[in-house]
Amino acid sequence: MRKARIILGHGSGGKLSHDLIESLFMPRFINPILQAGDDSAVFPLTDSDRISKRRQLSEDEIAFTTDSYVVNPLSWPGGDIGRLAVCGTVNDLAMVGATPLYLSAAFVIEEGLPISTLRRIVTSMQRAAKEARVKIVAGDTKVVEKGSADGLFINTAGVGLLSGEVKISGSNAQPGDMVIVSGTIGDHGIAVLSAREGLTFSNSFKSDVAPLNHMVDAMLRTSHKVHAMRDPTRGGLATTLNEIARQSKAGICILEEQIPIREEVAAACEILGYDPLYVANEGKLVACVAPEDAERMVQVMRKARYGHEATIIGEVLSGPKGRVIMRTRVGGTRIVDMLTGDMLPRIC
Amino acid sequence: MRKARIILGHGSGGKLSHDLIESLFMPRFINPILQAGDDSAVFPLTDSDRISKRRQLSEDEIAFTTDSYVVNPLSWPGGDIGRLAVCGTVNDLAMVGATPLYLSAAFVIEEGLPISTLRRIVTSMQRAAKEARVKIVAGDTKVVEKGSADGLFINTAGVGLLSGEVKISGSNAQPGDMVIVSGTIGDHGIAVLSAREGLTFSNSFKSDVAPLNHMVDAMLRTSHKVHAMRDPTRGGLATTLNEIARQSKAGICILEEQIPIREEVAAACEILGYDPLYVANEGKLVACVAPEDAERMVQVMRKARYGHEATIIGEVLSGPKGRVIMRTRVGGTRIVDMLTGDMLPRIC
Repeated sequence: MRKARIILGHGSGGKLSHDLIESLFMPRFINPILQAGDDSAVFPLTDSDRISKRRQLSEDEIAFTTDSYVVNPLSWPGGDIGRLAVCGTVNDLAMVGATPLYLSAAFVIEEGLPISTLRRIVTSMQRAAKEARVKIVAGDTKVVEKGSADGLFINTAGVGLLSGEVKISGSNAQPGDMVIVSGTIGDHGIAVLSAREGLTFSNSFKSDVAPLNHMVDAMLRTSHKVHAMRDPTRGGLATTLNEIARQSKAGICILEEQIPIREEVAAACEILGYDPLYVANEGKLVACVAPEDAERMVQVMRKARYGHEATIIGEVLSGPKGRVIMRTRVGGTRIVDMLTGDMLPRIC
Repeated sequence: MRKARIILGHGSGGKLSHDLIESLFMPRFINPILQAGDDSAVFPLTDSDRISKRRQLSEDEIAFTTDSYVVNPLSWPGGDIGRLAVCGTVNDLAMVGATPLYLSAAFVIEEGLPISTLRRIVTSMQRAAKEARVKIVAGDTKVVEKGSADGLFINTAGVGLLSGEVKISGSNAQPGDMVIVSGTIGDHGIAVLSAREGLTFSNSFKSDVAPLNHMVDAMLRTSHKVHAMRDPTRGGLATTLNEIARQSKAGICILEEQIPIREEVAAACEILGYDPLYVANEGKLVACVAPEDAERMVQVMRKARYGHEATIIGEVLSGPKGRVIMRTRVGGTRIVDMLTGDMLPRIC
């Protein structure tokens, strides 16, 4: 019998990733905080097993998240691995409604990396942290022999503060909610791919990698009815909507003609055979918002630096549970599933 | 001019690592929390810039730390990368006197890794987390193409809770403090090396990788005069003592004959040309404790599971500032410097 082995698809963020998490990690690490399955873990800062009641700090909670970044190449139009490593983790904290405060940064460096490259990337992290108003307070540096890693991998973990009033979760989307996306989809994946492959058919690709926490601040000041929020990174918009539909045991219906996409990205996807619904974003969010607040929310998002093209793309339904359905431009209906396999490896 | 490049020594934890941190990371990420330079960042959970006073949770503080583990091979007598990834981060939290509570775990996996290997390592993490009584609450999985990483790298970040009363720092060692080491040195480095190189001259090497937080709990219940604490991992006991001496602007004098070391480890070091003072440990700590409490502390440590061989090895002096001096077995005196270069790469 051949040994089962890890394949690239296990890192895609799509179906294989979910299967690996469910079958291998979850049974061993199981606890209610992990099981929530949102972009950040959320917990009160106390340990009920061991620490006396006095130590429960307040009703406020901590948000905590981690991501490793293995993107190839190390920089591309609109971003680099440093900016990505800060924004990705800031956004994961923001997606549960937390205020991102502190980041750690751990570097695994391949021997031979030019120090000037490292300096440029760390400077980019500094800028992104300043923009997001987070502090990098802990770090680690490891070096491995030439050939044992690909240039540079960065891990960031993040800690944020969550007001006791905020309850945003991928499992909290409500039938009737409007589904809002904050802007055009697919920009990041296509920009990284074009840089990696040296594609020259367009020079206008630009990644959207950006910290979304200031926009989220404005959103949460606008309405207490943001029920679910997530950034559609690996696996793209389609995978993220499927996660929300499954976790919330609801259906989601989106309208193809409402989904914002740059013309050149749509064209590149067409030529390369990619479905933009599955292409990664690093500066976009999806929110499920009560219908009475949805229009106002879109207006608020459009005033934010990274939300100019925010738009309502669909609706949460009571069923079919766990399913995402798209009404196509030509008037048909199509089931939109999670990403299967790995369309674009090493995009984040 | 040749481009300056990263070399293995930049990851050694010794002098080159310190230089890289001081010259490249610190100027860009600079903030008082990071500058403290201890094994974990310590901060109140508040953001004075943005969050109203109401949000300061209490006088208690958070400890936050991260480490990536790139050890080669993935397992060795006494441990594996999974146990190491949990214990290493638990220990970094414990070294500032915090109670470790929550961990994140992020995996960078090389395509082709047998899933059975991953399962074994994740099971080992589960066991270590149970022993340390911490929960793994956030995770990430990335997969890179065959040849772009070496099997598996794991990053863990950790969050702990620090009582307002505890002030332990590498910069807080006081002249007169006794220097205590919790047991034999060099076990981890030599065990990993022997597994990697297939050394067969002894089969009795065993890594000491272990969570030290329960022993630290007992220590902090015994005395409020633990001034400095650190685990001598990369760079070994010598590098850790140098860090404390520098940060505390004090001198440290140790007695060679008091330093516990297994006979077979001493013999291996002799044959291989290593100085055990620079060989990594993953289940040992060094503490600087007020002299009136030191003997009692040693007794408490010896009752703990991982402290049977705890012993006083020296003393903190008012000078020479930043220097570590060893009185040798033959009655001489030797300056013990930080690790220069990289003696044993990929040991953690």
